[in-house]
Amino acid sequence: MRGRDWRLHPEAMTLPNRDSVSAAHRLIEADIRRTPVMTLPGLGALKLEHTQLSGSFKARGAFHRLRAAGAGAAGVIAASGGNHGAAVAAAAQSLGIAAEIFVPAISAPAKQALIRSFGARLVVGGAAYDEAREAAERRAAETGALMVHAYDQAEVISGQGTVAREWEEQSPELTHLLVAVGGGGLIGGFAAWHAESGPALVAVEPEGCPTLAHALQAGRPVPAPVGGVAADSLGARQVGELMFPLAARLHAAGRLQSILVPDEAIRDAQCRLWADARLVVEPGGGVALAALLSGRWTPSAGARPGILLCGGNTDPGSVAA
Amino acid sequence: MRGRDWRLHPEAMTLPNRDSVSAAHRLIEADIRRTPVMTLPGLGALKLEHTQLSGSFKARGAFHRLRAAGAGAAGVIAASGGNHGAAVAAAAQSLGIAAEIFVPAISAPAKQALIRSFGARLVVGGAAYDEAREAAERRAAETGALMVHAYDQAEVISGQGTVAREWEEQSPELTHLLVAVGGGGLIGGFAAWHAESGPALVAVEPEGCPTLAHALQAGRPVPAPVGGVAADSLGARQVGELMFPLAARLHAAGRLQSILVPDEAIRDAQCRLWADARLVVEPGGGVALAALLSGRWTPSAGARPGILLCGGNTDPGSVAA
Repeated sequence: MRGRDWRLHPEAMTLPNRDSVSAAHRLIEADIRRTPVMTLPGLGALKLEHTQLSGSFKARGAFHRLRAAGAGAAGVIAASGGNHGAAVAAAAQSLGIAAEIFVPAISAPAKQALIRSFGARLVVGGAAYDEAREAAERRAAETGALMVHAYDQAEVISGQGTVAREWEEQSPELTHLLVAVGGGGLIGGFAAWHAESGPALVAVEPEGCPTLAHALQAGRPVPAPVGGVAADSLGARQVGELMFPLAARLHAAGRLQSILVPDEAIRDAQCRLWADARLVVEPGGGVALAALLSGRWTPSAGARPGILLCGGNTDPGSVAA
Repeated sequence: MRGRDWRLHPEAMTLPNRDSVSAAHRLIEADIRRTPVMTLPGLGALKLEHTQLSGSFKARGAFHRLRAAGAGAAGVIAASGGNHGAAVAAAAQSLGIAAEIFVPAISAPAKQALIRSFGARLVVGGAAYDEAREAAERRAAETGALMVHAYDQAEVISGQGTVAREWEEQSPELTHLLVAVGGGGLIGGFAAWHAESGPALVAVEPEGCPTLAHALQAGRPVPAPVGGVAADSLGARQVGELMFPLAARLHAAGRLQSILVPDEAIRDAQCRLWADARLVVEPGGGVALAALLSGRWTPSAGARPGILLCGGNTDPGSVAA
């Protein structure tokens, strides 16, 4: 039993677009942080989204889903042992709504503690993510709680798109935006906001989790391997059904590139950010920069790249060289 | 033998002021980073100066001293086992000038490595800071290298003042600026820039290093104890001769308050910044926030405080709760 099909939700029938991102911005503007941008010579403009509430961009999608769907007395539910679970817990706490977060037994104790720190009820069960998700879906069917999907939900994608909107306001000069991809909610939000014009998107994935690369090759979301140092935040089995048409369209138009980076480059990016700028990001948060540092993506003459640091939920001691 | 008296340097005869800070800004604008500001609800506007080149605001004063004094083939010298040494090394490397940094044997191996990472020649000698400084002064007299003082030099203070100038541009709405004090070069720069009008200054020191508090009480710079968790960056024996009249004048006018904070509050501030915003600061970098968190300084109704995070040169693992 795989539970409900998210694609059949009424709110998922319209693809996220510039209007839905603008609407999301208005709904969550007071909830989320406007994260700063700083320029590092030789690298580009870094957007410090890892300083967002809950330690990652995921708070944007979580707040938007909760506000747009009018989460109420029945509370909210999510399945995630990582950034999404923390974001839903943080958003629910901020809005005074009860949250239950289902995590598999393998999820890291530190992430479990983070989720609990936001006042959520943590339910540990099942060996892997799929079992936790199924348990969450069963529970939601019983209680009527609002389910928040980690990436394949229109309100979530439009919420993540508010990063792109905010960054455009802060750095209108950028020609290329480097963004990490897991399940695709974040790059989907970027593709929604920049659908018609704007900077080119560089979608960066670890070689160990090539969900978008495989999907673009296959012409549809397909299962991909899950592994490597960034699997805890980027290790979705396949990209979402909702983000795929948005990304595929930009890819066909030559406005979205798919890039893979090795784990060593991800670690290098984490260490470089600490050494050069005293910034701490998790492996998934270093993936975008890794594309530049490894030479897997090279800026053309005149390019002005922006690099999204999307998450910082890691042991801070892990970034010292 | 205490070497040269810095106060007799021609460039030190005029107290730093708004004009000298503006001039410093023009000289070093291309060298230093414009560090970002972010707002944390319930706390205020944080200026992330710990992301500055070399990991602290000290790069500003170092670049300005080197540029203004026209450091050349004879190179530069500084005595410091910490942030100042790293800043002078970084500035010298960036300008293609040889640097010798004298550090006492007790200085932390990690700080020594940081100084070396910027290509400086590290000279380890003497049991304490004063001996390293005397050795540096003897060496400078032999080689003709330009000496960069850690705080009591007009060009250094005017350089540090560029943080205040930059922040005013970024956050003109702030009513109070909370700034950590060690030897007083940084708060001296703020006092120079905001001498006539602008936000009130809250000068925050650890209880273990109360140099400005003691000086204001005595009416002149006097020796103070050096101890506690932030001594490695704020542990000057007394505030500088140049900064004191600037600070004393604002203090007399009710526009500068002196606040002391306990070590526990400094540690709390470090942990809070990591937990809430994935920011890593060294103990000295958490001192300003500690004033607010500990209640030693309480914003009046309508106050809009700004908090300077001035340094991040620490073991990143030390900030986890």
